[in-house]
Amino acid sequence: MPAERSLDHAARRRRLRADQARQLADLLRHQILSGAFPTGVLPLEHTLAADYRASRNTVRQALDLLRGERLVERQPGVGTVVVAEKYPHGLDRLQGLAETLHEHGTVTNEVRTVGPVPAPAPVAHRLGLPEHTDVLYIERLRRLGGLPLSLDLTYIPLDIGSALLGCDLENTDVFRLLEQQTGQPLGHAEITLEAVNADAHSAAVLQAPRGAAVLMLERLTHLGDGRPVDLEFIRFRGDRITMSGLLRRSL
Amino acid sequence: MPAERSLDHAARRRRLRADQARQLADLLRHQILSGAFPTGVLPLEHTLAADYRASRNTVRQALDLLRGERLVERQPGVGTVVVAEKYPHGLDRLQGLAETLHEHGTVTNEVRTVGPVPAPAPVAHRLGLPEHTDVLYIERLRRLGGLPLSLDLTYIPLDIGSALLGCDLENTDVFRLLEQQTGQPLGHAEITLEAVNADAHSAAVLQAPRGAAVLMLERLTHLGDGRPVDLEFIRFRGDRITMSGLLRRSL
Repeated sequence: MPAERSLDHAARRRRLRADQARQLADLLRHQILSGAFPTGVLPLEHTLAADYRASRNTVRQALDLLRGERLVERQPGVGTVVVAEKYPHGLDRLQGLAETLHEHGTVTNEVRTVGPVPAPAPVAHRLGLPEHTDVLYIERLRRLGGLPLSLDLTYIPLDIGSALLGCDLENTDVFRLLEQQTGQPLGHAEITLEAVNADAHSAAVLQAPRGAAVLMLERLTHLGDGRPVDLEFIRFRGDRITMSGLLRRSL
Repeated sequence: MPAERSLDHAARRRRLRADQARQLADLLRHQILSGAFPTGVLPLEHTLAADYRASRNTVRQALDLLRGERLVERQPGVGTVVVAEKYPHGLDRLQGLAETLHEHGTVTNEVRTVGPVPAPAPVAHRLGLPEHTDVLYIERLRRLGGLPLSLDLTYIPLDIGSALLGCDLENTDVFRLLEQQTGQPLGHAEITLEAVNADAHSAAVLQAPRGAAVLMLERLTHLGDGRPVDLEFIRFRGDRITMSGLLRRSL
């Protein structure tokens, strides 16, 4: 059955090329994110092919993958240029956004909603409050260099939160305000990270395509004395943030 | 201009409802992932509406968001049921997949590729090897309970890696094999997490829809003596994994 065999062969070749393109794309993604192309222009296709011992077709397919992630674009007469900048959010220490990104620019917050709401059961439970106690709810669209970075939904017990109503929420991390208001440092936070596809409305708010990959961070932050004071649900645009940290084998 | 004003009003109402649906969806997502619905069936819409002081329309829209994330489905005669199970991958300690998920089932690995390849420059550089030195390349599709969980691309220096060729890669974490082969515990790893949309080929391998959100983990693991021994690029299906950990304010 030579026809069938050659079909098999073609399918295997396509799979092999797709696998090699993914390998190459992962290496180039790392190079892009770590600033290995300071001019913002990637080497020419034939240079990449030689450097990575890959075929031109594999190189093209790898660049297609990175274009699909909105990391690069092809510019006529220039080549493949880096168009996205992803910012490194630290995973080693509990920090607010402005704090962790201070080297990369200024974080500004558009306060979409702020005010007391009755705490739904899961919020009350996690903040250690009786059900339906009022809590301060804050919804902020956070920008770095003017571009949307994250959409943050925040719940804070009202005895602490009410003082935040008069504060400069547009330009200050909630973490900093909590420490100012309570006069004590924050202690720790339990975090959960997920990758989700942005629903239409969240995508529109974040100025990202519908279905864009979002890095979702849920974080319950405690004061130094252990009291839970800040429950947040944060949607980071996947094309604008990375989370970096160090893990150890033994604790 | 009453027509324009009423349009404004309608647009504001839609935005408000979309915002409230997101709030509710985030709370329900947490409940679902933390096992708050042990029967696997969510409360009825009117119960949720009462519990969360939301309108029925907001509840429906919130459930739509969770359906969009493939967390729940509507089953006629039953209601809204949980269909996804997300597994918690620890972010506090450096662990292999089988190790971190041992309470949740058995991890099996389909080895798609294994063998020596000349290390591309960024791989050689990060593993502290001369360029184009051969390294062991392993590509595995990892399953939990038979369902694809992640696609892992791994580079290991050949002096350590060659011994892995005779090992049971189908059923054993590479971390465990590295510790067995080198006779020393692993030390630490630098990790980077991103959310990306799966390209068509990766989606097909992971049996996820094209464009599905993927949690991408890049990890460079070092032996206890500091030597880098394992560079990995891991694509986790976003609908099957969460990363959880604890952050502290002061180091």
